[in-house]
Amino acid sequence: MSREGQLKLGTSLHGVGSSVSGWRHPDLPADASINIDFYIQQAKRAEAGKLDFVFIADGLHITEKSIPHFLNRFEPLTVLSALAASTRNIGLAGTLSTSYSEPFTVARQFASLDHLSGGRAAWNVVTSPSEGVADNFNKGGHPDHETRYRMAEEYVEVTRGLWDSWEDDALIRDKESGIFFDPEKLHKLNHKGEFYQVAGPLNIARSKQGHPVIFQAGASESGRNFAASTADAVFVHGNSLEEAKAVYDDLKQRAVSHGRKPEDILILPGIAPIVGHTEEEAQRKYDEVVRLGSVEDAVQYLSRYFDYHDFTQYALDEPFPDLGDFGSNGFRSLTDQIKRDAKEQGLTLREVALHVAQPRPLFFGTPETIADRMQLWFEQQAVDGFIILPTVPNGLEDFVELVVPVLQQRGLFRTEYEHDTLRGNLGLNVPVNRYVASSS
Amino acid sequence: MSREGQLKLGTSLHGVGSSVSGWRHPDLPADASINIDFYIQQAKRAEAGKLDFVFIADGLHITEKSIPHFLNRFEPLTVLSALAASTRNIGLAGTLSTSYSEPFTVARQFASLDHLSGGRAAWNVVTSPSEGVADNFNKGGHPDHETRYRMAEEYVEVTRGLWDSWEDDALIRDKESGIFFDPEKLHKLNHKGEFYQVAGPLNIARSKQGHPVIFQAGASESGRNFAASTADAVFVHGNSLEEAKAVYDDLKQRAVSHGRKPEDILILPGIAPIVGHTEEEAQRKYDEVVRLGSVEDAVQYLSRYFDYHDFTQYALDEPFPDLGDFGSNGFRSLTDQIKRDAKEQGLTLREVALHVAQPRPLFFGTPETIADRMQLWFEQQAVDGFIILPTVPNGLEDFVELVVPVLQQRGLFRTEYEHDTLRGNLGLNVPVNRYVASSS
Repeated sequence: MSREGQLKLGTSLHGVGSSVSGWRHPDLPADASINIDFYIQQAKRAEAGKLDFVFIADGLHITEKSIPHFLNRFEPLTVLSALAASTRNIGLAGTLSTSYSEPFTVARQFASLDHLSGGRAAWNVVTSPSEGVADNFNKGGHPDHETRYRMAEEYVEVTRGLWDSWEDDALIRDKESGIFFDPEKLHKLNHKGEFYQVAGPLNIARSKQGHPVIFQAGASESGRNFAASTADAVFVHGNSLEEAKAVYDDLKQRAVSHGRKPEDILILPGIAPIVGHTEEEAQRKYDEVVRLGSVEDAVQYLSRYFDYHDFTQYALDEPFPDLGDFGSNGFRSLTDQIKRDAKEQGLTLREVALHVAQPRPLFFGTPETIADRMQLWFEQQAVDGFIILPTVPNGLEDFVELVVPVLQQRGLFRTEYEHDTLRGNLGLNVPVNRYVASSS
Repeated sequence: MSREGQLKLGTSLHGVGSSVSGWRHPDLPADASINIDFYIQQAKRAEAGKLDFVFIADGLHITEKSIPHFLNRFEPLTVLSALAASTRNIGLAGTLSTSYSEPFTVARQFASLDHLSGGRAAWNVVTSPSEGVADNFNKGGHPDHETRYRMAEEYVEVTRGLWDSWEDDALIRDKESGIFFDPEKLHKLNHKGEFYQVAGPLNIARSKQGHPVIFQAGASESGRNFAASTADAVFVHGNSLEEAKAVYDDLKQRAVSHGRKPEDILILPGIAPIVGHTEEEAQRKYDEVVRLGSVEDAVQYLSRYFDYHDFTQYALDEPFPDLGDFGSNGFRSLTDQIKRDAKEQGLTLREVALHVAQPRPLFFGTPETIADRMQLWFEQQAVDGFIILPTVPNGLEDFVELVVPVLQQRGLFRTEYEHDTLRGNLGLNVPVNRYVASSS
């Protein structure tokens, strides 16, 4: 089976990584999460591999049990802006929560990033799963799952409205006549909704790509509907071809039911490839990483998905405890999956913890093995591309130097950037300005 | 009279400028306010002149009557982050309002800028004078002048508390033992005040300079008290030596009455020098700029200080109208001054408008003339330095290439950066972490 088009590829930049003990690896700077030279080096490496984008995840609440990367890291918009000045073509995507911010500010900051990068910004819209965030933000309490998504829908609508404040030909800047702009083409939004009242106009115009690209990652029912109605690209789990295919079909179908075309929404599973010139080299790299961890760390890591539930009260080698409804608000789909797997496979707490903390990745082995699987998933129409989540210190380097050339040889990935905007490279349309659309 | 020490010098980067018609100058890119190459070039120029900092002002509300620079410009934190990656030594200061933002977010974003610039960030704390801002931010209304300053006091206190979340030696990062940090040296703020409840800790540590530098610019009674208790540096008006001296003495005295040392707070008047190799060249440059303007533009520019009051209802050549209390909330000290001057000098609306829009600057003429005046003000203890507000397209270039060498020759300004942080260059202390102070 063959398929038109090429893969879309991004990578997450996350300093010392998403594990408890990855920072201990001898090849990784222990301060990587707050080391701008490291971030610039990684972004340049991704750009050398012609990747579509780098991605900076985020969080708004830590405790002393948080993983090292979460404790002391850059804020996404600031570090992406620094990366904009250090790169030329690669897209710059960052997470920002709609539950604890103002649409006017967020619309502005992403629009500003979009301008200073020449049309390469993307916003990963999240609603903040962690309850503790509310304590940092003067709120009475954390809105529940459904409310957060209703807020997010309206929030993105407001943001897009603000991004359309200026029609593309509004700024005339004719020095001779002294006409700077056409007031007819500057629009107030005057939004008054359930959660937000925002007048506008925004004090920054649209960039070359119209709007920053909207990413989304929620996997719950409301998360999927939100993605289907709103997102340009969705980060999903990549645990198996079957799961990826099911999610892909589901999201494309939901998008169509929202009046969109299937190609308007890109489905990108996160994968954590470990690649070696040989299978043995890949295994050595994997073993090195697992060896850094401890079961205590793994149990602590697990607890963050369950609202920092104290798992040390359970025996490590007894069956995974019955937690009832616990852990249902935040990372709901993930914790449901963990509970289901534990029950079906009869796993102990030790097994669950080690598995969650550092499973051997599905995309594993030689460059050809990994490219084969990527190609299969793509041709089976289970993905539009992937987001690479490096788990070993040279994970991104390995992927760019070993796997990308194989994908390029097979015609599955670009050898040069085709466009200078992120939308262009991702094959997404520039959104029509709502005020132009309504008057034509 | 001589004085120890050297001048502190910063410059404002403001695209097409702070006038209505400056963008029409043939030597200025008409899109300068949204042109990252222009900003990078200007920042590098300021750095070549060994200036202490560049400064990005801000605003959160526009109408179709706003001046060109306000309509379509970068957001400060994002553009400063891009400049951080394009410069090495120069400080990076930006305005952000406490009335329409969250302390946790703002503390984080400035701390992130501080890290990615290696300790060069500064925050100019403003409270948003313009009433219209509230319409963009889901608020019932715009807090009054006094309330805004009470909020700002508490807000900065919270921000500084968050910045101290991590003691400087909290991050151990010992790969051998696996100890990433010392939980005893990570602190929750648990602030519960009149306006803010913020738990913390912040998810980013202190930078090399401890806290970003705090700038402030309010000139009202509450503004001055806020500056005296809180700010590391204050932007003031530089209309005359007498005024500067009075403001200087007043702010230093107020700082002392808040238990601070006079040298803990730097007083920096904004000046808009126009410099030529000869007096005639300077005059030509000034005439070119004034010629670009129109009295209609000048009247429109004036109106923004008076809540966009419609001045076109008045005759241009009659005495400046009696506005009563109008324009009292926002730019109060400025509008009071305008009314007072108009009355005392019997000015017409035309005269007031042209004067406000484009007065011939006090710092005007040859490099020596300008350096003389700067030296006089400095030696008279009326200033600690200046912030340069270029009003002509090559204003910054002229200042750096013509005036700075004269100041350097006289020993009034550095020839090389002495430090790699902004606090270091400004001669400000690194704030002691509150948790270290209380336990010692």
